[in-house]
Amino acid sequence: MSRWRPDARERLQQAALDLFAEQGFAATTVPEITARAGLTTRTFFRHFADKREVLYADDAEVPAMVATMMAEAPPSAEPLALIVEGLRTVAETRFEPRKAALLARRELVRTDAGLQERDLRKRAVMSEAIREGFQARGVDPARAALLAETSVTLINVSLAEWLDAPDDRKLYDIILETLATLRSALG
Amino acid sequence: MSRWRPDARERLQQAALDLFAEQGFAATTVPEITARAGLTTRTFFRHFADKREVLYADDAEVPAMVATMMAEAPPSAEPLALIVEGLRTVAETRFEPRKAALLARRELVRTDAGLQERDLRKRAVMSEAIREGFQARGVDPARAALLAETSVTLINVSLAEWLDAPDDRKLYDIILETLATLRSALG
Repeated sequence: MSRWRPDARERLQQAALDLFAEQGFAATTVPEITARAGLTTRTFFRHFADKREVLYADDAEVPAMVATMMAEAPPSAEPLALIVEGLRTVAETRFEPRKAALLARRELVRTDAGLQERDLRKRAVMSEAIREGFQARGVDPARAALLAETSVTLINVSLAEWLDAPDDRKLYDIILETLATLRSALG
Repeated sequence: MSRWRPDARERLQQAALDLFAEQGFAATTVPEITARAGLTTRTFFRHFADKREVLYADDAEVPAMVATMMAEAPPSAEPLALIVEGLRTVAETRFEPRKAALLARRELVRTDAGLQERDLRKRAVMSEAIREGFQARGVDPARAALLAETSVTLINVSLAEWLDAPDDRKLYDIILETLATLRSALG
């Protein structure tokens, strides 16, 4: 493959995932990734800050996407409707198409403390984006924080169940079930 | 003060908090802390793994305390009752008596990325303890994860509001309000 093909980012991601699976995350170096992809390290660092970010690059735009959705929703939209609609959009556009990559990442996260920290930070950044979105809509700070944390809980718990699901259930359907479970648990 | 007094741990914590407040967390070294406390670095490392842990030592036993409460609760106890009772105990025994220290820590966490990571890890460890507690009580894994994350959300959102509260409201009362807010938000 030529290094001039426009799919450098995807080739680097695939090479990295293959190497992480073959020899582990910690043991894999950026030069190994670029060699496998037939690209230069300079190209690698144009796309990713480090090898960890290869795994998180596709999530990077999600908080901004959520912020835009929240800013553009009609002022009359109720918080719960906003959450459900936002989770539906994120599930269908950002997670459903990436099940294999998300499964592979979860396996790697289990083996690496640095990736676990990165995962926790991703959660916090997402929660912060939603909290700010609610505050910008006039929701008081404590309620905004509560809605944001609960949104992230709904997506994370549902994601884990979806990745474990042996069938072809849709992530959005699982999110709705998780919401119903939470409602009934809070009685 | 003599180095033989039995309150070495508290003296080290107070010296560390004073120095963190005076000159920042990052700029403070363990030898400075021990000099201020009139103790040796050897004594310091008998009590704390590093200067970061000075801030988290008093939280260290909370997950185990929660695990014990969950294991000892009557089998008939409903999850929500268990959560409310557990949060009440943790609030009254572990957080109410430490408001000043918790306020000081929150200020420091705002200034330091390493402390922010430690805070996120503390959250994850707490959630994991509650999840395991529910699973041990026969709750299915997805529901256990949902209840655990929601418990941690309730305590964290309430803690932040309690620390900001200008009045003398009790943390447990704020937790109950937060629970009521979540219930009504989920409609």
